[in-house]
Amino acid sequence: MSRRPIVGVMGPGAGATQADLRHAEELGALIAREGWTVLCGGRAEGVMDAVCRGAKRAGGLTIGVIPGDDLHGSSEAVDVAIVTGLGSARNNINVLTSQAVVACGMGAGTASEVALAIKAGRPVVLLGAGAEAAALFRKLGGDLVQVADSPEAALSFLKAALAGR
Amino acid sequence: MSRRPIVGVMGPGAGATQADLRHAEELGALIAREGWTVLCGGRAEGVMDAVCRGAKRAGGLTIGVIPGDDLHGSSEAVDVAIVTGLGSARNNINVLTSQAVVACGMGAGTASEVALAIKAGRPVVLLGAGAEAAALFRKLGGDLVQVADSPEAALSFLKAALAGR
Amino acid sequence: MSRRPIVGVMGPGAGATQADLRHAEELGALIAREGWTVLCGGRAEGVMDAVCRGAKRAGGLTIGVIPGDDLHGSSEAVDVAIVTGLGSARNNINVLTSQAVVACGMGAGTASEVALAIKAGRPVVLLGAGAEAAALFRKLGGDLVQVADSPEAALSFLKAALAGR
Amino acid sequence: MSRRPIVGVMGPGAGATQADLRHAEELGALIAREGWTVLCGGRAEGVMDAVCRGAKRAGGLTIGVIPGDDLHGSSEAVDVAIVTGLGSARNNINVLTSQAVVACGMGAGTASEVALAIKAGRPVVLLGAGAEAAALFRKLGGDLVQVADSPEAALSFLKAALAGR
Repeated sequence: MSRRPIVGVMGPGAGATQADLRHAEELGALIAREGWTVLCGGRAEGVMDAVCRGAKRAGGLTIGVIPGDDLHGSSEAVDVAIVTGLGSARNNINVLTSQAVVACGMGAGTASEVALAIKAGRPVVLLGAGAEAAALFRKLGGDLVQVADSPEAALSFLKAALAGR
Repeated sequence: MSRRPIVGVMGPGAGATQADLRHAEELGALIAREGWTVLCGGRAEGVMDAVCRGAKRAGGLTIGVIPGDDLHGSSEAVDVAIVTGLGSARNNINVLTSQAVVACGMGAGTASEVALAIKAGRPVVLLGAGAEAAALFRKLGGDLVQVADSPEAALSFLKAALAGR
Repeated sequence: MSRRPIVGVMGPGAGATQADLRHAEELGALIAREGWTVLCGGRAEGVMDAVCRGAKRAGGLTIGVIPGDDLHGSSEAVDVAIVTGLGSARNNINVLTSQAVVACGMGAGTASEVALAIKAGRPVVLLGAGAEAAALFRKLGGDLVQVADSPEAALSFLKAALAGR
Repeated sequence: MSRRPIVGVMGPGAGATQADLRHAEELGALIAREGWTVLCGGRAEGVMDAVCRGAKRAGGLTIGVIPGDDLHGSSEAVDVAIVTGLGSARNNINVLTSQAVVACGMGAGTASEVALAIKAGRPVVLLGAGAEAAALFRKLGGDLVQVADSPEAALSFLKAALAGR
């Protein structure tokens, strides 16, 4: 099938740090330059918004999988807005739809997505997720989980993961 | 927001008639020519497959919201495959994500989508859905529900519905 | 397995008629007297509330599958409140969890549940659902769908359906 | 409202250790003796099965929220089987439906449930979940997350959490 690969980039909303936002925006651009589609949680804040803005800046296609039941609060940088009405149950759709997942920063929602990705056998890259997350998710996911220290390093892991498919 | 409108085209899979398939393919092309995105249930059969093939032929973008938990059995004419793992619960996502819905033919899954669209306040066009469906859904949805006798007539109703948004 | 059968009783909320409410309450009592569990949509209005009150009056167990993400607005006559946070996507859970379904009255949400029940192969009884619903759902579901004119007649169909399992 | 509190007990299926199973069975009995209802993931293995067997031994009521679309593979110790057909998206229902959550052991699915519980503001007790899980989830959830070293200690935390409601 000739569809573009989809990379899910997950991370905190209001709780994102400046580094998370910078990483997300850069990662969005790097993913778009590969010709891959970016998927995120779709809301107009934090990592979700930043990764889509980065991808749009580089001409990419962006998907937002929205927890609410309308477009209220969704990011303007989302091209395709999937309105689920499922709340946090939509996190599993984020993961199943992505061929690989990056956690950019860490929060409770992000942790659920990393865990669901491991459960579903999706490769995961942790970027700025912290030592505690790295320790738990490496233990649970083994080699499915990689730790990157920059967006470029995350991209390298993604290339390896998507090449192996 | 400058996102393209999304029109959901729902209809039977294996149970689609020849007329349903012809209508769906033509409708996909008509929707794509308006610059709108087509959304369907994503499987490689029936109305889902036909509407996406029609839209691709006219250069459109297609979204498939897949009930299973992987891409197995999905239509090759789907550009963006949303893998939900939700079974028929994904029918509500189809409806919430669409700004208007067309039922092309009728089956049990299609009927659930028309009913959910009415519940969510989405305009619905029935095309080849039969007199029984028209009678029930007009009763339940009033003017939200229109009956078309051709893809072109369905397009006219869609234009009116999307203009009013 | 010795679990009690679960019968889903679906119907309008605020839009329920006096006849719908009377039927639902009586049906709840009849189902409870068989030792079966009643399942409904869990909200504190319409058929959902009435069927649970009827079942409690006869000493039965009641399950409410709630669309919201907390107990706000749930019926006090629900013993086991399943909080889904899924909105109308929870309608498919109502149907899958029930060994048979009764539609008591008719509305858009109810129609979606009848359609999903047919899709999932669950026996359905229509009680006060109207001629239009009977015509469509008999066409879509064949003998899976029965039309009853009283709670007692609905119970007879349920007994036959559950005996055949 | 006079409904019984529901305590969700989450944990690995096939990957459960002997200690996890022993803890789960004992915890199920302790919860049932308080008059609370046990909720689990409903499958016939691991912590899900053990906690329900423990609760039934002590005369309790058990709810299983099943990922599949039928009862195949569900635990016989589940009294009320909610058939979701949602796969791992049902994990959010487990958490929303529970007034407090215990993680008995740790796996990828369990980690997703702990994370979703924190996201939803539900008190969480970790029992035999390991140092890595304790470190991450205490960081993400603060005082919402407690670490117990025995089923009795877990019960004490649950009593405090449910008293505060």
